Amino acid sequence: MKKVPVLEIFGPTIQGEGMVIGQKTMFVRTGGCDYRCSWCDSAFTWDGSQKPDLMQADEIVEKLEKQGGDVFNHVTISGGNPALHSGLAEVISLLQNKGIKTAVETQGTIWQDWMLEIDDVTISPKPPSSGMETNWNKLDMYMRELLNHSNNDLSLKVVIFDEDDLTYAATVHERYPEVDMFLQTGNDELETSDNSWLLSHLLEKYEWLVDKVLQSERLNEVKVLPQLHTLLWGNKQGV
Amino acid sequence: MKKVPVLEIFGPTIQGEGMVIGQKTMFVRTGGCDYRCSWCDSAFTWDGSQKPDLMQADEIVEKLEKQGGDVFNHVTISGGNPALHSGLAEVISLLQNKGIKTAVETQGTIWQDWMLEIDDVTISPKPPSSGMETNWNKLDMYMRELLNHSNNDLSLKVVIFDEDDLTYAATVHERYPEVDMFLQTGNDELETSDNSWLLSHLLEKYEWLVDKVLQSERLNEVKVLPQLHTLLWGNKQGV
Ligand code: SF4
Ligand code: SF4
Repeated sequence: MKKVPVLEIFGPTIQGEGMVIGQKTMFVRTGGCDYRCSWCDSAFTWDGSQKPDLMQADEIVEKLEKQGGDVFNHVTISGGNPALHSGLAEVISLLQNKGIKTAVETQGTIWQDWMLEIDDVTISPKPPSSGMETNWNKLDMYMRELLNHSNNDLSLKVVIFDEDDLTYAATVHERYPEVDMFLQTGNDELETSDNSWLLSHLLEKYEWLVDKVLQSERLNEVKVLPQLHTLLWGNKQGV
Repeated sequence: MKKVPVLEIFGPTIQGEGMVIGQKTMFVRTGGCDYRCSWCDSAFTWDGSQKPDLMQADEIVEKLEKQGGDVFNHVTISGGNPALHSGLAEVISLLQNKGIKTAVETQGTIWQDWMLEIDDVTISPKPPSSGMETNWNKLDMYMRELLNHSNNDLSLKVVIFDEDDLTYAATVHERYPEVDMFLQTGNDELETSDNSWLLSHLLEKYEWLVDKVLQSERLNEVKVLPQLHTLLWGNKQGV
């Protein structure tokens, strides 16, 4: 069995973002990322500040079951970029054998065949404010593979910090018009522990984003969402 | 053309609840309801406090277009109970001819054939705290009709105020396990205009609901959501 670097296994909690927002789920957060987004909210997965455990598939599933007991049947694999790890194939197949649904989020830079087995796939290309550059050819191939060879639920998600990000999101949306598109408020205050201040700050940003989308003809079909877990629990890790 | 009693036409705004949460949409709110829920947040549709306009289908669509211009292609029909009005069939067909998607929410007590034409159908049976009683035979027929004769996206939504409501929601969920199920925080403070107090009150209630769902084996598959518009704009009507 290939080992997977795991930073945290937590839950049950709710998915606070995107296509299955509100869904009860467990999280497996893997280490490592091929990107270095300026505003990464899980930089601890790749900046060396926290050390991953190298775990086998059966150990990961065991820990999920120990922690989640009978009160979950959905697991979200998150990162970092989980698509770095081919060993997740075994995790996913073990979970499926138990009738547990899976979700994943990745920026769509590295392909893994296990991507086709996931129930809820979120591809989240990074907008200009991240400092990263999108390889459109690669992304096209990624989306084509998912659209043609899988019957999972597929969505796109773009985190928005400014007007340039919105233009980028419209471009992504128009490139893959058949795919459900989610826009999400970016959190630019990752350090604060003043939750009530953060709450009003993030709601202001969400309102700004809603207003912008409402005015834009290019964004008639998108869904605009906040991060529910941040509204509830601020910047706390592991919830 | 049959006329439809309309209380408000507003938007574009975002859908703050349920299966298409975050979606940019216009709202048409019809008058009248066969229920009298104790905590109804749109009692003005049936308590005589606001007077509906009797409007023809083409007038409704004209007003939507005048108000929404080019920045919408989704319309939510809400109430009251919109299923009181057979005249909505024409509204829906006019919108469809223009490529505009539609959504509706109803408690599932009164059937209309136009229900089969709607893209996003939310059936929201009312839990014990509402003071209403569910006719399960009727609801079964309603759900069967939608599941067998339509290819719309279908969901159930139950607003939760207390533990009894949660038990009711689990019963509904187990009765129709193949249907996406949403639980929503109830707003028990419909009169306050103190938005920052209301925000923290509703988030506390949402956290309570999340905790309860996380602990319940019967509710592993449900999605738990707040009302985004209330978090943003409080009890203001028409947003
Ligand atoms: S792709 Fe995701 S995990 Fe990687 S740096 Fe960007 S935000 Fe962080
Ligand atoms: S069914 Fe809806 S509109 Fe009718 S009384 Fe109940 S909450 Fe109000």
